[in-house]
Amino acid sequence: MALIVHKYGGTSMGSVERIKNVARRVAKWQKAGHQVVVVPSAMSGETNRLLGLAKEISERADPRELDQIASTGEQVSVGLLAIALQSIGAKAKSYTGWQVPVKTDSAYTKARIESIDDSRVRKDLNDGYVVVITGFQGIDGNNNITTLGRGGSDTSAVAVAAALKAEECLIYTDVDGVYTTDPRIVPEAKRLEKVTFEEMLEMASLGSKVLQIRSVEFAGKYKVKTRVLSSLTDPDIPLAEEANSGTLITYEEDETMEQAVISGIAFNRDEAKITVAGVPDKPGIAYKILGPVASANIDVDMIIQNVSHDGLTDFSFTVHRNELEKALEVLKAKVQPDIQAKSITGAKDICKVSVVGIGMRSHVGIASQMFETLSKEGINIQMISTSEIKISVVIDDKYMELAVRALHKAFGLES
Amino acid sequence: MALIVHKYGGTSMGSVERIKNVARRVAKWQKAGHQVVVVPSAMSGETNRLLGLAKEISERADPRELDQIASTGEQVSVGLLAIALQSIGAKAKSYTGWQVPVKTDSAYTKARIESIDDSRVRKDLNDGYVVVITGFQGIDGNNNITTLGRGGSDTSAVAVAAALKAEECLIYTDVDGVYTTDPRIVPEAKRLEKVTFEEMLEMASLGSKVLQIRSVEFAGKYKVKTRVLSSLTDPDIPLAEEANSGTLITYEEDETMEQAVISGIAFNRDEAKITVAGVPDKPGIAYKILGPVASANIDVDMIIQNVSHDGLTDFSFTVHRNELEKALEVLKAKVQPDIQAKSITGAKDICKVSVVGIGMRSHVGIASQMFETLSKEGINIQMISTSEIKISVVIDDKYMELAVRALHKAFGLES
Repeated sequence: MALIVHKYGGTSMGSVERIKNVARRVAKWQKAGHQVVVVPSAMSGETNRLLGLAKEISERADPRELDQIASTGEQVSVGLLAIALQSIGAKAKSYTGWQVPVKTDSAYTKARIESIDDSRVRKDLNDGYVVVITGFQGIDGNNNITTLGRGGSDTSAVAVAAALKAEECLIYTDVDGVYTTDPRIVPEAKRLEKVTFEEMLEMASLGSKVLQIRSVEFAGKYKVKTRVLSSLTDPDIPLAEEANSGTLITYEEDETMEQAVISGIAFNRDEAKITVAGVPDKPGIAYKILGPVASANIDVDMIIQNVSHDGLTDFSFTVHRNELEKALEVLKAKVQPDIQAKSITGAKDICKVSVVGIGMRSHVGIASQMFETLSKEGINIQMISTSEIKISVVIDDKYMELAVRALHKAFGLES
Repeated sequence: MALIVHKYGGTSMGSVERIKNVARRVAKWQKAGHQVVVVPSAMSGETNRLLGLAKEISERADPRELDQIASTGEQVSVGLLAIALQSIGAKAKSYTGWQVPVKTDSAYTKARIESIDDSRVRKDLNDGYVVVITGFQGIDGNNNITTLGRGGSDTSAVAVAAALKAEECLIYTDVDGVYTTDPRIVPEAKRLEKVTFEEMLEMASLGSKVLQIRSVEFAGKYKVKTRVLSSLTDPDIPLAEEANSGTLITYEEDETMEQAVISGIAFNRDEAKITVAGVPDKPGIAYKILGPVASANIDVDMIIQNVSHDGLTDFSFTVHRNELEKALEVLKAKVQPDIQAKSITGAKDICKVSVVGIGMRSHVGIASQMFETLSKEGINIQMISTSEIKISVVIDDKYMELAVRALHKAFGLES
């Protein structure tokens, strides 16, 4: 008997029939003797419908009110799932984020979990209940409802698993695991049985949209064994089969010793590039540029600064495409008067492609192999950024599929 | 400057356009210098949609989970209305029942308000905010979400007005006030400028569905000046005109001294009649019959027991039609073994028609005039019940419209 957390996405919760299937799957785990906590997302389309109503009223709606509205999608889901469980004979009880409570900071629409009180949930589990908890949301110190941002239910599930010291956190989704790259682009892509947290972190942040990145950070930090698996299988398949399917995200280094050098090719079309050119190269310049951007709550991904010429340097970084205009506004209003750059420009027609692998730490030549492959295809590299376990390049948007296919092949991921 | 509570029904909140109209109306009151608290219902159709989903999963859903689900409709409304207010320059903030908090008992789907903490709301009002509070809901002592039952937003609004000692509680609805009877049945029905709480209580409970009965009880108990008025007028009509429209429900007796003997004819088709016949007439028999019914949380309306013959009496009462089967089950399982009645029967083809008027206290002959009118129309009376300010009869369902029209005319309500 173990304590297991299940998480189901919006598609799995998309209709009354599907919710009943989720209930059958959950009940199967409980009948096998496990204590089960379930974190479902809102029914698919619901969050968009709710935020759409708000947007019809105002394009610049108060984030506090958006969270008040958006959080209801998950609240409906937990109630419906609890009823579905009860209707097939399982004891079940639902909780919203504030009822648990899941405490967060006050950054509406993108809050971070600070703590989870497990006492009420644990009592119910010991009393034989399946506990169904809203994903995506919590409350801040003043009892305001907050949401964690898109995909936040993954994070909620992992955080709940961490708080309860769960044996495993199962993320049921509409893919059957983590692949070497997106099979829609490379049909030969292979499912990985295991992947390390560090690799997954790079994969997730770079666009393999299986898991929300913050959930992976959480899983790594609290060493939560997390498995990504399919919610599309028959809910009544044998539990042992289900329990070993999908991709397990591990945190034990030794488990990965024998792994391939490269685990996968990730990519991302959600970013835009900003270049601040001709900046006097003085100490503190990076902070002067990025400080106001961060204060405006805009996330920055890649940051590149090259050596300077004649005391001037170029400073480039990427932000989410939706935040390009906002970032440029901030730079022109708050940064330019201070730094006197020659130009500040933005570009949306870019993408980022990365090779990821924990094995690359002990292997040389991965970077050169990557650059050679792209060069052979005639693809120009605009920016390069490296970490211990990944190399990312920014290239022209239109070459993305070509680059991914070429790299997948070059690193032998098809076999 | 006064503190005013506005309540808007589901129709008024039925679309983005209508929500914007509500915002304009509310902002008008705030601009005139009033502090305004708004209690909106869920968007029309939303509560039914949510409960419909639950019903698709299970016909006998857990009431706790139903409340978890149903309460989201109002939560969406408050967020949207706050955004609409902000978009036209009014400071606004929304709260759910638990955020205020509105404390209730634990009777899911029909909870009663126990207390309302006004501190957070009052602080916001003093800071210049319009405060938007969810109707229909609260939390019990264990932080479970509860709902007050259908129409509960009226009760929430009046309870909030009482807690804040508001100057007036304005119930905006799709009718422009309280009428002598339903104009759909009697086109000559007239709007009442004022009506006493006691009359309104009888009118509301008897089927003039303008206000939820519990809201009227609350208004009477805490002496909240409550006005029913139209939400369909132009939101920009002069405030003075709007403030004097509709029907004011008063609690000062003297204001009603000059009122007509009869204020209105109420009716109700939602009830069913239960007759427990041939019961030994002993002390405690009423309790033996109704105790188990009340324990099953079934509301009883009229109760009639006539004199006994040969030590046997007949005991009749009415319940809501939807609860007839449940009530009969309870009676057969828990009451019959104890009391040994000759028969227990139920009938749905009945209706209740009442004449209501605070003036009847000092006038004789109202009852006989009522019975004479019905008799002239050939309508048989099955049950009679009287109070100080109303006389109700149960008659065959099919005569309802006829009876209402005849009584409306007989008591001169058309002029």
